[in-house]
Amino acid sequence: MPQQSPLDLPEGDPFGPHNLPYGVFSTVEDPGRRRIGVRFGDHVLDAAGAARALGSAHAELLDQPLLNPLLAAGRPVWTAVRAELRDWLTAPAHRAAVEPHLIPLSGVELHLPFEVADYVDFYASEHHATNVGRIFRPEGEALTPNWKHLPIGYHGRAGTVVVSGTPVIRPLGQRMPAGAQAPEFGPSRRLDIEAEVGFVVGTPSALGDRVPLEAFREHVFGVTLLNDWSARDIQSWEYRPLGPFLGKSFATSVSAWVTPLDALDAARTEPPARDFALLDYLDDSAVEPGGLDIRIEVAVNGHVVARPPFSAMYWTAAQQLAHMTVNGASLRTGDLFASGTVSGPEPEQRGCLLELTWSGRDPLELPEGKRTFLEDGDEVVLTAWAPGPDGSRVTLGEVAGRIAPAV
Amino acid sequence: MPQQSPLDLPEGDPFGPHNLPYGVFSTVEDPGRRRIGVRFGDHVLDAAGAARALGSAHAELLDQPLLNPLLAAGRPVWTAVRAELRDWLTAPAHRAAVEPHLIPLSGVELHLPFEVADYVDFYASEHHATNVGRIFRPEGEALTPNWKHLPIGYHGRAGTVVVSGTPVIRPLGQRMPAGAQAPEFGPSRRLDIEAEVGFVVGTPSALGDRVPLEAFREHVFGVTLLNDWSARDIQSWEYRPLGPFLGKSFATSVSAWVTPLDALDAARTEPPARDFALLDYLDDSAVEPGGLDIRIEVAVNGHVVARPPFSAMYWTAAQQLAHMTVNGASLRTGDLFASGTVSGPEPEQRGCLLELTWSGRDPLELPEGKRTFLEDGDEVVLTAWAPGPDGSRVTLGEVAGRIAPAV
Repeated sequence: MPQQSPLDLPEGDPFGPHNLPYGVFSTVEDPGRRRIGVRFGDHVLDAAGAARALGSAHAELLDQPLLNPLLAAGRPVWTAVRAELRDWLTAPAHRAAVEPHLIPLSGVELHLPFEVADYVDFYASEHHATNVGRIFRPEGEALTPNWKHLPIGYHGRAGTVVVSGTPVIRPLGQRMPAGAQAPEFGPSRRLDIEAEVGFVVGTPSALGDRVPLEAFREHVFGVTLLNDWSARDIQSWEYRPLGPFLGKSFATSVSAWVTPLDALDAARTEPPARDFALLDYLDDSAVEPGGLDIRIEVAVNGHVVARPPFSAMYWTAAQQLAHMTVNGASLRTGDLFASGTVSGPEPEQRGCLLELTWSGRDPLELPEGKRTFLEDGDEVVLTAWAPGPDGSRVTLGEVAGRIAPAV
Repeated sequence: MPQQSPLDLPEGDPFGPHNLPYGVFSTVEDPGRRRIGVRFGDHVLDAAGAARALGSAHAELLDQPLLNPLLAAGRPVWTAVRAELRDWLTAPAHRAAVEPHLIPLSGVELHLPFEVADYVDFYASEHHATNVGRIFRPEGEALTPNWKHLPIGYHGRAGTVVVSGTPVIRPLGQRMPAGAQAPEFGPSRRLDIEAEVGFVVGTPSALGDRVPLEAFREHVFGVTLLNDWSARDIQSWEYRPLGPFLGKSFATSVSAWVTPLDALDAARTEPPARDFALLDYLDDSAVEPGGLDIRIEVAVNGHVVARPPFSAMYWTAAQQLAHMTVNGASLRTGDLFASGTVSGPEPEQRGCLLELTWSGRDPLELPEGKRTFLEDGDEVVLTAWAPGPDGSRVTLGEVAGRIAPAV
């Protein structure tokens, strides 16, 4: 039986021509040379190699060690490159030219696909914010009075965004045990995950400009899964009054693959009904649906512990972008903003261990033992898919990370 | 009378050979070419031009449009370059070679001197934090329980750090008037300044490493003045529970000049006595004094409204750096971290209008009228000096900004 071509994908492969996420790879043979790759089935297309072979005008834009120049090129170029890629990978006339540029995934190393400019993390799930409010501030209202009037967000550390697969070293820090007179210092005892979706900005904006809801697709290139690792003991002691800092800044993991927004057109969905009228710049009742039907799975050591639905998010990414720039703050190519923990209304839809175990009160029962928070050696993998065209699925790049002991 | 050489500085010039701050400039004749400059009196030394003329091995490192490569080169190179510059600018043998590379300040434009990686803002003045706590949270303790155990900080927006002289556009945003049922939207009515000192990181650190107090000088290249513009009405509505976001992210101004740490050796001073024993990684009782005797002046439309003393800061920059990395967060070249508002114990030493006017209750009386917060057209200039060697003064680069109307 002749070997099958990697161009002959099985029907319905979630990394087929309707998906085509971008990443940056190097090969085992040439580890120092990072290049843009496009995932196709279980292979990576060397995008610049194929572009040269086929005489594309975009060869130079694709012959880069980071996605940033492509991100900066803007939506017309994103559309043109995506159409070319689809043509190269599906037209019989191109088979002979393209096939040599498809490399098995097993032969490549994947790298952080873009240089992160600013990283912002939102807090857009009503279910998550309500649960966290009940746990952290049992004395007060679960949601702060501003929560349904604006998408709450804060800046995180761009320099510690790492690619899927990077070990996560357990952070040291201060914690204040209940009833103690002074804080203790040591490795975090409440190391958690947050399952999120991240949005990658391509087209920048000028200082003083606002990006209205309608301009979302002009500025945002695509999405990644994101794990906003969180040390709850450090966070709960430090966060008043200026917000999370060291409880989050030790690592944030993103997928190696950035899924173009265009691949998610069939996943668009209406966000939940809003409980308050929104100010004009956030009122999305007259624009295209801003929700995305992305179904996430959270696995700890191979066991699925939660299935958070992204469609349940109260605030959309377009609202987050409009809010983030309403004060005139500029966008840069490579800005990354994340949704905040994705949690649905059901207990098994909660996107972090703080909620899943109710702050440790209700441990998870895994085959290898109970878990309240993460132990050294635990591996967390986030996966997700969304509806694609004609009943297909679009799989997002996974985000994996294993906990290494504190050093 | 022969024209005086710019190399013949008056005795005691605060930009003499004991100071030598670095910036990036272009000339009126060649506006597209940004280069590293070193301020000397009222002139700018074209550093690469002088280095070439004198055959320095550092010519290439200095022939750059940003300071980042010099910042990344590390302390031994910083020391060597500073010694060369001092030699070029003071040794009679070099006069003829150096003089052509001195350009009057009036003939240059100054630019943002380095690309900012991550920007972190601390909250290190006990006087400021106490005043703000009293104003924003009158019902509770002025200082949160963590305040004297760790230097509280948060990440700000690196992409909106701008150089002195950049107009500051009044931000739009949400505010919640007292007693209202829903937020309003419009230009901020409580636009404020925060007079701060910023620290510029040169030498990076690896993910997982901690930077102890003793390693401060290995990693930090120098200081700038910094104005953390703040929209108090936006901030007070948005900041619970995740901290400041749009109330700060519209602009942060820094000096065009980065003063090397070496120029501030004579300004080192003991920080205030601490009220609680500190955890080991913050305990600076056995290291060199971490305080800096920098005297700041805040002027609004040319009238000095405050004189905040940096020596009064509770937490030092070395403690801030040790804290910021104690969880293993890595440093990148170009990281900028700021002190937080500098306020002293006296009313006229307060570094923001929120404190100076007690949230608008006690307006400032300026010749052009009363001021609670900033009006369109107002110009704020921060200046500062520190003791230099042998009774001299080291003047820091000023930070100026004028308020432009909301657009």
